[in-house]
Amino acid sequence: MLETQVRAIVREEIERAFQKDKAARRACIIASKGTLDWAYPPLILSTAAAAAGMETAVFFTFYGLNIVRQDFEKRLVVSPVGNPAMPMPIPMPDLFTAMPGMQTVATAMMKSRFAKKGVATIRELLDVARETGVRLIACQMTMDVFGYQQDEFLDGVEFGGAAAFLSEARKSHVTLFV
Amino acid sequence: MLETQVRAIVREEIERAFQKDKAARRACIIASKGTLDWAYPPLILSTAAAAAGMETAVFFTFYGLNIVRQDFEKRLVVSPVGNPAMPMPIPMPDLFTAMPGMQTVATAMMKSRFAKKGVATIRELLDVARETGVRLIACQMTMDVFGYQQDEFLDGVEFGGAAAFLSEARKSHVTLFV
Amino acid sequence: MLETQVRAIVREEIERAFQKDKAARRACIIASKGTLDWAYPPLILSTAAAAAGMETAVFFTFYGLNIVRQDFEKRLVVSPVGNPAMPMPIPMPDLFTAMPGMQTVATAMMKSRFAKKGVATIRELLDVARETGVRLIACQMTMDVFGYQQDEFLDGVEFGGAAAFLSEARKSHVTLFV
Repeated sequence: MLETQVRAIVREEIERAFQKDKAARRACIIASKGTLDWAYPPLILSTAAAAAGMETAVFFTFYGLNIVRQDFEKRLVVSPVGNPAMPMPIPMPDLFTAMPGMQTVATAMMKSRFAKKGVATIRELLDVARETGVRLIACQMTMDVFGYQQDEFLDGVEFGGAAAFLSEARKSHVTLFV
Repeated sequence: MLETQVRAIVREEIERAFQKDKAARRACIIASKGTLDWAYPPLILSTAAAAAGMETAVFFTFYGLNIVRQDFEKRLVVSPVGNPAMPMPIPMPDLFTAMPGMQTVATAMMKSRFAKKGVATIRELLDVARETGVRLIACQMTMDVFGYQQDEFLDGVEFGGAAAFLSEARKSHVTLFV
Repeated sequence: MLETQVRAIVREEIERAFQKDKAARRACIIASKGTLDWAYPPLILSTAAAAAGMETAVFFTFYGLNIVRQDFEKRLVVSPVGNPAMPMPIPMPDLFTAMPGMQTVATAMMKSRFAKKGVATIRELLDVARETGVRLIACQMTMDVFGYQQDEFLDGVEFGGAAAFLSEARKSHVTLFV
């Protein structure tokens, strides 16, 4: 066999290998925030990745542990304070948005707006994630710090540390810290 | 041809292929925050990536939609509330930073400080981004939720969903959620 | 040599090359937030990556510059305002969390809780990072904007811009914006 023939075979095999590159079919997302608004991005992105056939893991750490606790619906609220980008019916100074009750109003507003537009709820997104094989991993270290027990988490949630996250993430093109 | 010769050719071709790896020349950034301070990182990083010859896309979602609306200059403000890391001329308790008018003061302060140091404005960064081929993609789903219309966005902005983001991001080494 | 033999050699070499893919052994993290709580994730993740044998760099920009200043211990505080996800002994409306003194209370609470659970302090994590070869790079552009001098930063900190970050990040699978 001639060198040119060998090179042709090599290039063909390499192109095929890059197309099959597993890193392009893996997504690894950290969910570190524990409010209603920031619960959406990791769940929307991970379920979309799974729908696209990607192996997907979400690693819940710090305040993000809220999202996979059994009482997540009570815990995931939204505060308008310090976020002037939040669309409000009328513009308000921060002092108003800090008044007792405003958090409840903002949370109800966001839920109703999402529902009206047909966006899945957090519960629905969590169900889809588990049904489509998205791995949900709670950070054991921050659980210890916050005093959370494993039985306070949703069924199907795994437990691991930063090393577990990194061993997945290093094999993934898509790595995001939400 | 001998096996050693074949292996030499193969290794040479593989090294060339990895050097040309397109994933190393692609960046895909999500801009999810809608305040003046957090508008800078996705625009600075994406224009720097384009300047380095990388194919670059920024995906604007949630509050980040503010950055590519036609009225972005009015919308992008900054709030000192709940961010004790923001450098202030004098330290202030949160109750002070929540007073009416403080948002306007903090926004003006940040703009003047950036201008004095010769940092490009958001408008200039958006112009550079479009001139250098950075794709600006607004998230259609969150636009629907917030009730935003396509004609309220800057010229050159594209529209897409999480699937559009992922199909770019999975081919990119640099993937960031701002 | 037959084509089948050549292809076998090629596949073997390609598999070896992908296993040795340097991108899977590099992590590049941006630290953009300057409060006590958000100082932990970039330092925990980068020291874990270094412990796993990865070449690791953390790029400190915007408020994140606080983390590598010599006076970081005074600067890294935490505010409960606008973060309803922060675990508090008793739930409080935002107006209460904005009261003078609450920032000091929340900072002391977080430090004591982390210490009780044996989590390393920020000082310890910074020491481990430098001892294990994690590169700590401060963003020169935001230093100029905030008026920070190089001698105000910890020993061992390097200085660079967005281009320096990107030249590392484009070669890394793990790229995170904290």
